Amino acid sequence: MVDTVGIVGLGLIGGSLARRLAQRGIKVVAWNHRPHPYAQAEADGIYCKSTIAELMSADPDVVVLCNPLKAMPAILAELKPLLAKSPRTTLTDVGSVKGMVRDQVKAAGLGECYVGAHPMAGNELSGWRAADPHLYDDALWAVTVDEDTAYNRFFSVASMITHDVGNRIIVLDDETHDKGAAMISHMPHVVSTALINELTANPDRNVAAALSAGCWRDMTRVALTDPDRTRAMVEEDALNVEVLLRRMASRLTAMADQLHNADASAIGRFFAEGDPFRRYKAEMSSTDAFTRQELEIPEQGWQQTLLFSARRGEAITGFVNLRQAIIELRPAI
Amino acid sequence: MVDTVGIVGLGLIGGSLARRLAQRGIKVVAWNHRPHPYAQAEADGIYCKSTIAELMSADPDVVVLCNPLKAMPAILAELKPLLAKSPRTTLTDVGSVKGMVRDQVKAAGLGECYVGAHPMAGNELSGWRAADPHLYDDALWAVTVDEDTAYNRFFSVASMITHDVGNRIIVLDDETHDKGAAMISHMPHVVSTALINELTANPDRNVAAALSAGCWRDMTRVALTDPDRTRAMVEEDALNVEVLLRRMASRLTAMADQLHNADASAIGRFFAEGDPFRRYKAEMSSTDAFTRQELEIPEQGWQQTLLFSARRGEAITGFVNLRQAIIELRPAI
Repeated sequence: MVDTVGIVGLGLIGGSLARRLAQRGIKVVAWNHRPHPYAQAEADGIYCKSTIAELMSADPDVVVLCNPLKAMPAILAELKPLLAKSPRTTLTDVGSVKGMVRDQVKAAGLGECYVGAHPMAGNELSGWRAADPHLYDDALWAVTVDEDTAYNRFFSVASMITHDVGNRIIVLDDETHDKGAAMISHMPHVVSTALINELTANPDRNVAAALSAGCWRDMTRVALTDPDRTRAMVEEDALNVEVLLRRMASRLTAMADQLHNADASAIGRFFAEGDPFRRYKAEMSSTDAFTRQELEIPEQGWQQTLLFSARRGEAITGFVNLRQAIIELRPAI
Repeated sequence: MVDTVGIVGLGLIGGSLARRLAQRGIKVVAWNHRPHPYAQAEADGIYCKSTIAELMSADPDVVVLCNPLKAMPAILAELKPLLAKSPRTTLTDVGSVKGMVRDQVKAAGLGECYVGAHPMAGNELSGWRAADPHLYDDALWAVTVDEDTAYNRFFSVASMITHDVGNRIIVLDDETHDKGAAMISHMPHVVSTALINELTANPDRNVAAALSAGCWRDMTRVALTDPDRTRAMVEEDALNVEVLLRRMASRLTAMADQLHNADASAIGRFFAEGDPFRRYKAEMSSTDAFTRQELEIPEQGWQQTLLFSARRGEAITGFVNLRQAIIELRPAI
């Protein structure tokens, strides 16, 4: 079980996590590159430290890197000798692209103590002032592992998220995570941005904007978030986003051709193709509580067991013991 | 000024409009192809009629066609002899594509008494049971006219919307409307549908769905609405949607190429291109009330005067008299 958690970076994600863990009775030690959030954070029961070395001397069970990706190499370099002296501390992070972080962590020689994590939570705000423990209400995290991940490292991070943050997890390899995140977030962010670019280029943009209602507002909301943050996220996952953008472009071109040819049956297929997702959403919203059951986690090949569980649509809500997870059976698409 | 309004079709849009007008003291006569909403509508103060002829015998100032487009030819044929006996009744509708409705109205020989209208209001529901007068809270309508539209016909519809529904209007020709609606609604509906099609085709769709949060939920909301209704709307505006889908496909392909080549400056331009729209949204949300001023409407070329006003981003909130509108000066993009 986790007693002390170190948070590096008190922005929206890190600040919200620190506040939530403190609220739920975990000892939280935190460091931020500028001390401006410290007075308020201390008032929230967070122990603020003036250096990363001081944070590490609190001997945290888990250190969560919530800093911007561009600060990662410097912070990892600083952590390297400190983690050598704290062999039981597990390192994790909250980045939205996992392959690149693991590469950086391995390059810093810290692969052995690392488990990736990505909370599916956030909003269009940023910084400590927007930090809110409710950001994590009902959130699901991806926890990413590879074949070398030590099970006890995984278990520290997984039990912190399920028991201490009170959230659900799915366990993935980095590639599956990054492809999935490209599908439901990184590529759609580009599409949303392309929509506002198209409007801006439209000679009747003021008329179009006046006519806009719920559809336009919802589809362009993420294009209004900080474009530099979106750009960084997209560039970190460039390979996967590129593939999906080409697939989307070809879907839109095919539909343009079908409209051009008034090809009623192809147009009909286009509007029916997503029905499995529509049924899944209807099932999700008609379900108050998912059936739960236990899942035995083997010592060998546990990564695959947990990945297959995620692929079936299951999510881990907690642990009975080290080798027994509680999973939710969710509808599949 | 308008005393009596006829509503043909008590679905979501027509039912909400009937309830709103009745609530605001207008005499509303209504007809629906099936009488199931009548008991509740009568309780709301709406006079329900068993035939369109009975509705017309109440001598409404304006008749609003809120029926599905596929019922339009039959209803127009039925209205033709009735409108011949009620020369002061003005005909309007609420369809989301205006060129096609005007064509049908002209084909029925009713062009002289017709003014197009499209309230930018709606949600994912449908039918009388979802009808809610608040659907029109703060709504803006497009009112569409052509060079043959009689000013007094326009004024009846415009003053019904501003004075009796309590909404704002912009005045457009059909083509400008249909291009604008394609930009902010019809084309984005196709994009949203393509997104759920792409997810459904994804081998890791359950993982991707589990990872999905606010971005995905917002960008696919309209794809979950009745796909038949979306399909009809897109097919009615096929020409404009086709052009915009090709433009979007080329934007997405260009971005895929730029990611492939890691072309930092082109990627930077892509994320900056929509800044004028971002600034417009920031201005809109920081403004509590727009400056209002009067706009003189000339007898000759009034259509152009009002179209240019819409293109500048202005909206009409009411009328001082027949030739004097009150306009809101809204931010321009």
